[in-house]
Amino acid sequence: MAVLRSFVNGAWQAPADGVPVRDAVTGEEVARVSSDGIDLAAALEYGRRVGGPALRELTFHQRAALAKSLALMLREHRDELYALSARTGATRSDAMIDVDGGIGVLFAYASRAKRELPNDTVVVEGAVESLSRGGTFVGQHILAPRTGVAVQINAFNFPVWGPLEKLAPALVAGVPTIIKPASQTAYVTARLVELIVESQILPPGSVQLVCGSVTELLDHLDEQDSLSFTGSAATARRLRSHPAIVARAVRFNAEADSLNCSILGPDAAPGTPEFDLYVAQLVTEMTAKAGQKCTAIRRALVPVAWMDAVVGAVHERLQAVVVGNPADETVRMGALASLEQREEVRRAVKELAAGCRIVSGDPEHVSVTGADPERGAFLSPILLRCDDSGRPEPHTVEAFGPVSTVIGYHDAAEAIALAARGRGSLAGSVVTGDPDFARTVVVGLAPWHGRILVLDRTAAAESTGHGSPLPALVHGGPGRAGGGEELGGVRAVLHHLQRTAVQASPDMLGAITGRWVSGGTRRTDEHPFRKSLAQLRVGDAVVAGPRTVTLEDIEHFANFTGDTFYAHMDEAAARANPFFDGRVAHGYLVLAFAAGLFVQPDPGPVLANYGIDNLRFLTPVYPGDELTVTLTCKQISPRDGDYGEVRWDTVVTKQDGSVVAAYDVLTMVAKEWTP
Amino acid sequence: MAVLRSFVNGAWQAPADGVPVRDAVTGEEVARVSSDGIDLAAALEYGRRVGGPALRELTFHQRAALAKSLALMLREHRDELYALSARTGATRSDAMIDVDGGIGVLFAYASRAKRELPNDTVVVEGAVESLSRGGTFVGQHILAPRTGVAVQINAFNFPVWGPLEKLAPALVAGVPTIIKPASQTAYVTARLVELIVESQILPPGSVQLVCGSVTELLDHLDEQDSLSFTGSAATARRLRSHPAIVARAVRFNAEADSLNCSILGPDAAPGTPEFDLYVAQLVTEMTAKAGQKCTAIRRALVPVAWMDAVVGAVHERLQAVVVGNPADETVRMGALASLEQREEVRRAVKELAAGCRIVSGDPEHVSVTGADPERGAFLSPILLRCDDSGRPEPHTVEAFGPVSTVIGYHDAAEAIALAARGRGSLAGSVVTGDPDFARTVVVGLAPWHGRILVLDRTAAAESTGHGSPLPALVHGGPGRAGGGEELGGVRAVLHHLQRTAVQASPDMLGAITGRWVSGGTRRTDEHPFRKSLAQLRVGDAVVAGPRTVTLEDIEHFANFTGDTFYAHMDEAAARANPFFDGRVAHGYLVLAFAAGLFVQPDPGPVLANYGIDNLRFLTPVYPGDELTVTLTCKQISPRDGDYGEVRWDTVVTKQDGSVVAAYDVLTMVAKEWTP
Repeated sequence: MAVLRSFVNGAWQAPADGVPVRDAVTGEEVARVSSDGIDLAAALEYGRRVGGPALRELTFHQRAALAKSLALMLREHRDELYALSARTGATRSDAMIDVDGGIGVLFAYASRAKRELPNDTVVVEGAVESLSRGGTFVGQHILAPRTGVAVQINAFNFPVWGPLEKLAPALVAGVPTIIKPASQTAYVTARLVELIVESQILPPGSVQLVCGSVTELLDHLDEQDSLSFTGSAATARRLRSHPAIVARAVRFNAEADSLNCSILGPDAAPGTPEFDLYVAQLVTEMTAKAGQKCTAIRRALVPVAWMDAVVGAVHERLQAVVVGNPADETVRMGALASLEQREEVRRAVKELAAGCRIVSGDPEHVSVTGADPERGAFLSPILLRCDDSGRPEPHTVEAFGPVSTVIGYHDAAEAIALAARGRGSLAGSVVTGDPDFARTVVVGLAPWHGRILVLDRTAAAESTGHGSPLPALVHGGPGRAGGGEELGGVRAVLHHLQRTAVQASPDMLGAITGRWVSGGTRRTDEHPFRKSLAQLRVGDAVVAGPRTVTLEDIEHFANFTGDTFYAHMDEAAARANPFFDGRVAHGYLVLAFAAGLFVQPDPGPVLANYGIDNLRFLTPVYPGDELTVTLTCKQISPRDGDYGEVRWDTVVTKQDGSVVAAYDVLTMVAKEWTP
Repeated sequence: MAVLRSFVNGAWQAPADGVPVRDAVTGEEVARVSSDGIDLAAALEYGRRVGGPALRELTFHQRAALAKSLALMLREHRDELYALSARTGATRSDAMIDVDGGIGVLFAYASRAKRELPNDTVVVEGAVESLSRGGTFVGQHILAPRTGVAVQINAFNFPVWGPLEKLAPALVAGVPTIIKPASQTAYVTARLVELIVESQILPPGSVQLVCGSVTELLDHLDEQDSLSFTGSAATARRLRSHPAIVARAVRFNAEADSLNCSILGPDAAPGTPEFDLYVAQLVTEMTAKAGQKCTAIRRALVPVAWMDAVVGAVHERLQAVVVGNPADETVRMGALASLEQREEVRRAVKELAAGCRIVSGDPEHVSVTGADPERGAFLSPILLRCDDSGRPEPHTVEAFGPVSTVIGYHDAAEAIALAARGRGSLAGSVVTGDPDFARTVVVGLAPWHGRILVLDRTAAAESTGHGSPLPALVHGGPGRAGGGEELGGVRAVLHHLQRTAVQASPDMLGAITGRWVSGGTRRTDEHPFRKSLAQLRVGDAVVAGPRTVTLEDIEHFANFTGDTFYAHMDEAAARANPFFDGRVAHGYLVLAFAAGLFVQPDPGPVLANYGIDNLRFLTPVYPGDELTVTLTCKQISPRDGDYGEVRWDTVVTKQDGSVVAAYDVLTMVAKEWTP
């Protein structure tokens, strides 16, 4: 049988022999896995020397485009990946979660990076911090890609989604990746990486694959590398305390399976839509991927009064679950990943049974459709019931398979306390139609959870369910769940960057960030609206005014727009207002007059005002006040196509120098302009 | 001699005897230190059971007020703390950095929390994420205080600033603290905590003190606790791999002293202001706190051509540094913290001398003013010079005292590479007047640094210097510097919170976050401008319109405001614009008309419009279009005093339902209103 190849140092390599991996359904050998003799230190060095520099030459947007190309390419190969997945015991629907889910993460990061990250190589984060009275010394944070390799160690249960959900943020960040799949399902991941490598979409060194052990590689991790692990809590512990990781403060992220709970609200009595949603979701979470999900519901916390009803309804639905060969269309739940995995689950069920009793299913027997029950890793879904909430087993023993335990609670406080006994979870859910219960429980659960789903009849049709991590939301949880955080939109990209505070004079800071900083030099020689994006520079500015605001202006504006708010129209009422000494000009009038002052009216490269950010009215404008506006080019963001975005720092002052309004005006400006 | 008391479990306790701690200047015993027999597990439990719940009942603003009260109280006791600090070898100016700096962090967090955190117990972070096409399923992140204890292990060099820079963010976050000072200077921290406890400003259990060893305490850390360490890289390693920390994924932050560099730019030739700034800063960093700062400059990277000039100028200034008893006013540099500390520095200098040579100072001899040179831990400032940049010593050996090494470089790339050989630093600086050099070096250094100062003649007068962490900027660095991050404004508060993704229907999410979510229910029974803050609820809304925009309106507005931009006035030019099909209404006109529609003009509880956030113009408005505006109360933020802030979700649509503009209107609303 062929040994799976690793892709390191720019070449596919395989040792002569390895450990056999078997088909979860038939028991046939699928491949052998080993990294013997593969130079893993060289793989790291290749990533650092070749992959990193090539990726860091690109902007976030360019790397996002690569992620999108990858996703489009992989979408064409879904059927092949589905077929391989079936050998891991996955049903078609399990495989779609894995394959389509993984491709979806690539798409999500591609589009999000374009929206939320700059078309640049460095992220400028947060506001400019004033560090001195005189304004000559300021600070701001920048985030730059780390120069190491992102090593990922994956779990067996999601051989496509697992690598891709870690790859997408690293790729967008500009950090090369080494993928290490779990041996049990490594043949799926190996094919995934073959597709990526063959496509030649990514620069050389961006993605490498190590099938087999990476123990030797870990010794070579350095201060700029990161290690991201998904799997068991025990392995997470071993990795976290690895000498190289400890000595070099290597960034380490763990996402470990946890004893997630789902709470049924007291309002969700049998007969309500929420009760049915709870039962259906619990059955789904028990049987999807044969319960082999880090996020699956292990503990079903239900009001004591409805334990019988929940147990009865879940049992009834579980009876209808057809277990067997995923190739058979009637099959709802496939095999566990391996016979060893099944043995582990059986052992865990035995432990659980010391404090709970089995109320549905039989760990030793299952009726199997379309496969040999002896050769395939099949297991019946198993529901347990714990009537003594003081027992430790359901809160400490994890059966990583189609196994859940129903536990009763008396009130919200007890539900929260029971949830916390899991000592940290990736995901929790609350099924309730009662907003007060939801708020109490969510806030109580939050310190122990990375994600909490609140399910009610309104959200039901579109809910993605308890168990599904989403690219937009963080995935990870405290304590037993590993204490890590993945996904969560651009947060995951930022994890691959180093945050650095930069302190400097305004002009120097501006030179470093590419953004004009308040207090920096302004150039007012030519009206900046006459400059194309190619000609414009940050710091180009126009100062215009003064224009006097009269009482007639205010009344005229009020009557024209209909905005006859008392502060503009009624002297006594305005005076009674704590902010004003009398009738004031409309904020919108100030904005309109400011635009009237700063605009250059002739056709030119400025195409449109598409928005305003962070507008604050700081000093009231009274009749007779004179307004001056200063508009300064703050940031220039070229986009694909013929134009780009320009952000203008805008300050309106009055005759005494006080600031009336400060805001950013956002415009589109043509890259080229010929009058 | 008295044994320093610890404050745990609500009481001051001291063992019978402990390890002696000596005056750094006179060698006299100051106190004894031990935690023998103190129940440290109980201290943790007391923090969790008593301190945490009391703090979590308060809002971020209320806790910020406590931080401010603490700062005001401590300010009254500065002289006492200065006097104690002198016994640690600190000069008055060293003590001010420590004491005033620490109090400054409290003030900074107090004011920043009021500005940047909600007056609530949970932080809502980031945008609402759309998770479904139909809009019935959405997500958002919340951050809730963790329910454990923040344990801090401090370094000896800043016995006041160290504990306070860790306490301030934890306190604001709502997390109780256990302070463990370094024994060498524990008597200063012990007095600090006495002042805090005696003041009774904080709820019981908020702050505890353990003088002596906390080894036993670490075993009891759990999933909700955190450990924050400042000190040596070796101790950081030991703590990071502590079994309890590893097993329970305890949040661990390390800030270790590092081999920080300061780079002289090629433009900063001898004779330039930047050259002088470089030399003066290097001498300051070598001698302040007798060089016992994690952020001090250990490596002076200078253009090869100017090594002689730098060495000469630094040597000349070091000659003028008076070393001795801090009580003597002529003394510029005090003692090291202890004789043991001095021996360590001497050993390190010997190691350094294998690859460098001493060009100023003598590790074995120093002239001392006002003290006995045998009893006090005095040391001469020592400058080394490394002419072989290939030598490892200056990049690996840290002498934690008044010791720096001058190293030559040839170009920016070499300077960046040499800097990286420190394998991760807390702080770096670049002294240059050349923006291009600054940008190149800062971006190159960024992956290896937590903070980088760019110093030039403009910033010089107000610069806070290479070595000073500031509350607004992150403190910490990758790799050797510990891989941690402290301070950085509210980021440090967020480190004490758990980020949790919440998924729900819009109304349910709104109930949990207290903010109206787009897609949620609106109530339009009464105009919300008629409701006081006490009456107003999120979701209260007004829908107003339609109003037709005419060409006359556009021309009138243009002539009135002066905004005669071609897109409003010139049909042909507007058509030529890629965004418009003809003349369009001003965005500012749309805003003004929208306000005219949604405003309720009578005197009422709405006091002022103080701003607009996130305004985007999404669809052009042409003559004949009809505008409708929907204004929905999105967030209510009561403040101290008679009013609060109300954020209104504002959407302007036109006749076909397309969204013309979307933004948040910010108003002040009176808490009570009697017509």
